[in-house]
Parts: sequence; structure tokens; C-alpha cells
Amino acid sequence: MLISVNKRKMAKDLPKRSENYSEWYNQIVIKADLAEHSAVRGCMVIKPYGFAIWEKMQAALDKMFKDTGHVNAYFPLFVPKSFLEKEEGHAEGFAKECAVVTHYRLKADPDHKGKLIVDKDAKLEEELIVRPTSEAIIWNTYKGWIQSYRDLPLLINQWANVVRWEMRTRLFLRTAEFLWQEGHTAHATQQEAIAEAEKMLGVYADFAENFLALPVLKGVKTANERFAGALETYCIEALMQDGKALQCGTSHFLGQNFAKAFDVKFSSKEGKLDYVWASSWGVSTRLMGALVMAHSDDEGLVLPPKLAPIQVVIIPIYKKEEELKLVSEKALQIKKDLEVKGISVKYDDSDNRSPGWKFAEYEFKGVPVRIAIGPRDLQNESVELARRDTRTKEIVKQNELVAKVEHLMIEIQDNLYNKALAFRKENMHNVDSYNDFKKAIEKGGFVLAHWDGSPETEEKIKEDTKATIRCIPIDGKKENGKCILTGKPSQQRVVFAMAY
Amino acid sequence: MLISVNKRKMAKDLPKRSENYSEWYNQIVIKADLAEHSAVRGCMVIKPYGFAIWEKMQAALDKMFKDTGHVNAYFPLFVPKSFLEKEEGHAEGFAKECAVVTHYRLKADPDHKGKLIVDKDAKLEEELIVRPTSEAIIWNTYKGWIQSYRDLPLLINQWANVVRWEMRTRLFLRTAEFLWQEGHTAHATQQEAIAEAEKMLGVYADFAENFLALPVLKGVKTANERFAGALETYCIEALMQDGKALQCGTSHFLGQNFAKAFDVKFSSKEGKLDYVWASSWGVSTRLMGALVMAHSDDEGLVLPPKLAPIQVVIIPIYKKEEELKLVSEKALQIKKDLEVKGISVKYDDSDNRSPGWKFAEYEFKGVPVRIAIGPRDLQNESVELARRDTRTKEIVKQNELVAKVEHLMIEIQDNLYNKALAFRKENMHNVDSYNDFKKAIEKGGFVLAHWDGSPETEEKIKEDTKATIRCIPIDGKKENGKCILTGKPSQQRVVFAMAY
Repeated sequence: MLISVNKRKMAKDLPKRSENYSEWYNQIVIKADLAEHSAVRGCMVIKPYGFAIWEKMQAALDKMFKDTGHVNAYFPLFVPKSFLEKEEGHAEGFAKECAVVTHYRLKADPDHKGKLIVDKDAKLEEELIVRPTSEAIIWNTYKGWIQSYRDLPLLINQWANVVRWEMRTRLFLRTAEFLWQEGHTAHATQQEAIAEAEKMLGVYADFAENFLALPVLKGVKTANERFAGALETYCIEALMQDGKALQCGTSHFLGQNFAKAFDVKFSSKEGKLDYVWASSWGVSTRLMGALVMAHSDDEGLVLPPKLAPIQVVIIPIYKKEEELKLVSEKALQIKKDLEVKGISVKYDDSDNRSPGWKFAEYEFKGVPVRIAIGPRDLQNESVELARRDTRTKEIVKQNELVAKVEHLMIEIQDNLYNKALAFRKENMHNVDSYNDFKKAIEKGGFVLAHWDGSPETEEKIKEDTKATIRCIPIDGKKENGKCILTGKPSQQRVVFAMAY
Repeated sequence: MLISVNKRKMAKDLPKRSENYSEWYNQIVIKADLAEHSAVRGCMVIKPYGFAIWEKMQAALDKMFKDTGHVNAYFPLFVPKSFLEKEEGHAEGFAKECAVVTHYRLKADPDHKGKLIVDKDAKLEEELIVRPTSEAIIWNTYKGWIQSYRDLPLLINQWANVVRWEMRTRLFLRTAEFLWQEGHTAHATQQEAIAEAEKMLGVYADFAENFLALPVLKGVKTANERFAGALETYCIEALMQDGKALQCGTSHFLGQNFAKAFDVKFSSKEGKLDYVWASSWGVSTRLMGALVMAHSDDEGLVLPPKLAPIQVVIIPIYKKEEELKLVSEKALQIKKDLEVKGISVKYDDSDNRSPGWKFAEYEFKGVPVRIAIGPRDLQNESVELARRDTRTKEIVKQNELVAKVEHLMIEIQDNLYNKALAFRKENMHNVDSYNDFKKAIEKGGFVLAHWDGSPETEEKIKEDTKATIRCIPIDGKKENGKCILTGKPSQQRVVFAMAY
């Protein structure tokens, strides 16, 4: 059973990564039916296949949040302008990208039949901002919920859409509207709030490694790159196949900034009044971009089994209707046997596409395992089994199939992780001179170098090379060195890279 | 073990239903920690306990949608004004309640340090409407997805927030922003689209009856009450304890209205081009209001076990620390035994509240079953078991407890449904004269009467009595009669009521 497939054609004319990585990414997202641009500038439509992956991410993260003591809630879409103003750094950070609601009614256009105009009589007294993030509206609410240390900690998460008006957008990576979760916690002490921010960073790193199959560096951001309103921003950073870094999630220690801005105080066990300490943390549909870029190849999407909406596709091979009937019987039995083991299976017996077309289609969509079964396989009590990650095929006895596929779910997941880890190792280098630094940045990857700790130096390096400090690694080893630009002393290497 | 509880005080000063039903509802929602008003006019905060109930509703509905072949996707929050204009009836219906985004940037106010103003240079060329519903943006997208009958049916659902600027709002029942799901399907034939709208009405009715424990009438709306842009609106209507009707969900047959507005055509099997047929259907956080009003009593919330975030609460009774230790050991064992059976259990051993306070608290929050256990229970190998729905208590042997509680989960669910059904039966009457009609409407409940089918008659009755036609029952029996107002002939009774 050998089906000849014109690979170039079947891969939907996808550019090679080596030719045009950026266009390769854009086309996979669209041609694998993950998402598309909408008619609204900067906003995307997440298509059913893409959304099914996002739902798997949500389910896994939601469970991790609940297992660590968090509960979900829902806060308003709109933030009054005056709330946004209350925390100065926060206001400055988000003012430039706010979608502003100014009116609450349309009316018929008297001059153009069938057209609508904004009703000037329905102007809001105060403009409402479509939330770019919810610290302001949430801390205004927390004021009513927190009086005593008995009310703390408050460990709340929200799944929501947010809007940040971006001028240059890319599907999943940077869109005006995106979906995310935002955790907002309140604590009695600074230590607890910091511990929470660090704990959630750990949750994100676990999720990235165990579900996305993507190794990440855990670190803190420099002052320049901090979240607007935070005292410390923690992040996970991953390396994409083009050697650029992608920030995959952040958690923030907010100090008492928002408690002060919204006057949220609590009485301690000892009866003392103090402002509440805060953290916030979030990951978004950007993770979909990370997933696509991390593992996919020139033949299309590659999905880790834990996030694949279809883990196994079964394709019947037949010429005559009677053959299809016999093959279907066996295929449906296999489907059932796999589903009992919790594996999601699609049997595609659609009659308007050839097996070759189907092979290429599910390959392009990243389905981890493909089973093909035809009349000869029935005779031999075997099937043809193909792996998407290695693109290898083998003949497997039907009575060994379920165990084999169960094993593959783990093996493919591990293989993708190990491949990404090996890639990162190959593309992560220490450099000690500015010349070597520039060459390394040009080549791509994570570049570990000494930095004198000043924003000015960071800025100058960015001007020269476009590289930014992705993070100061949390578990980076202490060593004495000299800043690559200024020669001033440094105690730890930081991670530079070109970034999305 | 008899704990005296000052019921009046413990029920958080809740007004009685008979005294002030409306205020009773408002206070339950707030005091049971379901939701509260936010600082943004008409928008609510759904608190963790309320949101946990909504999550259970979502999970059940989502499974029902997927079991009937639907998939989820996500479409933009914003609808360009010109899209809303395209379907005339739709535009007219929603224009008056649209939140309008006109600008995409704020800037520092030069006259007031620390304040922000709208940046006039960042005015949108075309205003964006925060979606009040998504037919327009979705049908504009479907245009790109549908070419042939092979692309049909398209069976897509979206979980989302929507905004309809309401002047008078009430938590859950009518809020400017609310959460909902909206299904949007595309079909090759009229019959299929109608069948889909009817099928989803059936799904909603099943959900209401099996999860909310709320019997509903299935029917179609009169032309006056149709969704803006629909040819037919189907609905489920439930009766609340004050005798008013609450519309709990709707599904719409949209004909080819949106396909024509957005030029969505498909080529049929026979190669003929035709416009696509559509349905849409939705339920919202309004169901939370239905749930509260359907079953709760003067002591607070009553929740059906299938939607209760906490199904069983265990409360330890003790005086000395050693007693607590022994009681806790047994309580945690019981918790584990119940959890193995899939029952969600909270063990509340907090030391800052008395058992009496806890009894009242969980009663108020509608937890279906309470188990109290003290030193004497340990000796007797028993516990005290209390049901929220009947407010009865009994002593149960520990070795019979798990089976008993498992059984109660079903029995309480059934009891709530049967109680609501009996209430509806008592409050649903046929009337044949306008005089009797007015008396019946005054009394409350569903009033079944003959109507001549004209919008004018419907309008006149509404003016006289404030009652509206809730629906024309789908399975209503045909019988000849005379319109209660005009005496003109009618073939079927319709359902009138005062409504939320």
C-alpha cells in the first residue's frame, strides 16, 4: 500500500522555513484552519480547529490553577477612564492602545436611508475603555471584598477577551483583541505576593514543558521591560525555530501599587491597618503562535499529542464499496478500542477525497498518528501506522495496535520536547565581547552575556543590534564578569535575543 | 446535637418572598455571593461562587452541543457599523442599545496632570460596535467559508460576552454586558435550518429540565416578539415563583436573510447557486437568574445537585481540640469516600465561625446536603444529615452514608423539578373571557387563551394588562375557540403572562 503523493503540492504550497520563516508561519496558521484575519482591523477569527487546540490549553491550565487553590470569576469588559488613571505607570503604559467607547446608541441616518449614525445625544458622561487588562476594575472591586486578614489571600482568575490597539498585528502573536486568562491575587504580606507570582511562573513553565512540549527559560524582566504598574515582572521565554525568542507568559509582583491607587486596606491579625499586596499573571492565545512555531515543519503543523484535537486519524483504503464496508467495520472497531483508552480518533471515510489527499491533509494539520487500513491489511491482520513528528511509517499487527498507539502518545510528546530542547541547547551561547555578541545575535538564538545593570546600556545595545534582554535567569549561576558594552562589573549573565 | 439558630438573623435579613419578591431576589444574588453591581453602569461582577455555577452550566451545555455535532470557534468582539446596517430588521432591533467605539487611543491631558483624555487624532474611520450578538460579523466570515454544499452544514457555537445597553438592569436578568453562547449554523435547505432551530430548542429544554430542574414550555414567538432579523423565533418559557414568566433561551430560523445581506451563496449538488439557510440560538447568564428564582426560599438559595459547586458540606462539632482531631479524621474519610463517587464535598473546619453560623451560611448558599459530625456521632457511628430542599434532618449510620448521599443527589434533583412542575400546574389556567383573563393575569401564572393572531390584538391586550404572549406552544392541542378580545376565530390557545 504505497500512495504516491506530490509533497510539494500537498503541503499546500507552503514556503520552506529556510526560505521565508515569517510567511511559512502565516500560511500554516491560515491553511491549517487555525485562524484568519477578520474584517475588523487587527482582530482575528479563531476557526474551529484552532479553537479546539485553545480549548485543550484552557482545560489544562484551568485545572492547574484550581489545583493551586484558585477560583474563577468574571469582571466587566469596560474600565471607566478615571480608573485607568489611578495607577500612574499603568495608565501611561496602556493609554496609547485603548479602544474607547464614547456613545451608547445609534440612530437612523436622516440623510441616508438604511444607514446608521452615532446618536450624539447618547454620549457617555465618562468614556469607557475596553479592558486592555483588568487590574484597575478588579482592584476597585476588591476594595469591597477585603477588610481583614481573614479575607486574604484572594486567589482569583478570569478567562476573558482583552483589547490592545496594536498597529502591526500577526495572527495569534499580536492581535488587537486576544483571549487570555488573568489571575489577580491579594495577600497580607509582600513575601506571600512574591511567592504567588513565582509559583504561577512555575505553573506556566510546567504547562509549556508538559503540554506545549516547549522548554522555557524562567527569569525576571529588566526595569525597561516590566509590566506597567509592576515592581517585578517574571516571564517564561522560549526559542522559536528561526532563532527568535517568544515571551510565553508573565507574572507580576505588583507591590501595594494597586491597593494604594484604589485604597484597599486590611486589618492584620494584630489589628494594624495596611495596604494589601498584589500579584497578577497571564497567558494568552499567543501560546497558539508558540505552539505552531515550536514544532511545525515544511510539511505543515506538528502538534504534541496532549494538545491535538484529533490524536489519531484512520483512513480507509479501498476501491470497491464492499471493500469499504469490510474496512470500515475493522476501522470502527479500532476507533472504539482507542477511544476506550482516552485517545481521540477521527475515522475519515468521506467519499469525495482520495486517500492521498487525506494523508496530506491530516499531515498538514499536525495529527500525531495516522492509521491506514485496506483489504490487504485485513488479510494480514495489520495496519499501516505513520508518525507525524518523524514522518516514519511501519506495519503494525492489529492486536498490538492499541498498546502501540498508547505508547506513541507519550513517545511523540517526549520526542517533540527533546527536539526543542536540543535545538535550544545548540542555539544558546555565552559570549564575552561586544563583537562576538553582535555576531551571535545576527546568527540568532539565546545569547548569554554580562550586562552592567543600567537601562542606558540595555537601550544602547538595543539600538545597535535590535536585541533585547529577554530575562535575567532565575536559576542562572552567579559569576563575575564584565559588561559586554561598558566593561563595568556584572555578577550574572543575562539572556539577550531578537524577539517577537 | 441540637444547635439553636436564630433563623431570621441567620438568613441574613432576607425579605420573605411573600413580602417583596423582587427585593428577595436581589438580596439572595448579592448575599449568597453570586454577583454584584460593578462600578460600570449596568455591568455586573460574577463572583467566584456564582461563576462556579455558571461553569457547571457551561460544561453541561457545551457537552450537549458537541454531542449534537457542533464545534466551538471565536469571532471578533467588534462589529463594524456598516455590517450591522446590512440586515435591516437586525439593524433596527439593535441600534438603540449599541456601545460604540469611536477612538483607539488616549493621551495625557495637557491641562490636568495625571489625567487622560481621548486623543482626537485617533478617531476611527468607521465606528465599531461592541457585539450585541454576532450574526453580522459571523455571516460576513461565513462568506469566505462556504462555496459548495460540501461545506454545509456549518455547525458552530461561540461562548462570548455581549453588550446591549439597557436602561434598567437587574443582576443576571438584564445587564448591559452578559455572558452567553451563540450558535450560528448554515444549511443547504430551509427544512434543515428549521430542524436545527427546533433541535436546539429541544437541547435547551432538556438542559432546563435535567440540570436547572425547571420545567419549560416550548413554543414559537409571535411576530411582535421575534428576534430582529429572524423569520421564526422559538423559545423556552419558565414560570417563576411570583407568577411571572422568564424566557430562558431562544433559537431562531433566520431564513436566507443574513445570507442575502452578506451575499453567502453555495452551489448545490445539482450545480445550482442558492443563498444559504441559517439558524442561530443562545442562552445566557440570565439562566442564573432563572435558577435562583425557581427554587430558592425564604432561607436563601436552593441549588439542584447537578449545578451545585459544593454538593455536600461537612461541619465538625467540637469543644476541645482533641475532639476536633478525632472528628476531622472521620470527616476527611467521609469526604474521600464521597469524592470517589464523584460528589463534590467541602469540609469546613475553619475555627473562626461557630457551627451555627456555618449551618446558616451553607443553607443560605443552597448547598444540597449538610453533614454534621461530633464526638457523640463518633461513638454512635452515625452522622446528622440535613437536606436543603426539604429542610429535614435525620441520623444516618456511617456505613450507610455514601449510598444515602448518592441517592439524595438524585432525589433532591427530582424533588426540585417535581415541585416546580407542580407549581406550574397550579398556576396555568385556561380562560375564555376577557374578564376572566384580566383576573387571571392579575393573579399571576401562565394563562392560556384564544387569540385572533393579529399584532394589533396582542398590542391592545398588552396595553390593557401588561401581559404579553410568551409563546404559541409547539405541542399545544388544536381546538376551535374565539379570541378573548375580538371574538374572532382561533385554532389554538396561546400562553399569556406577565414577564421579566
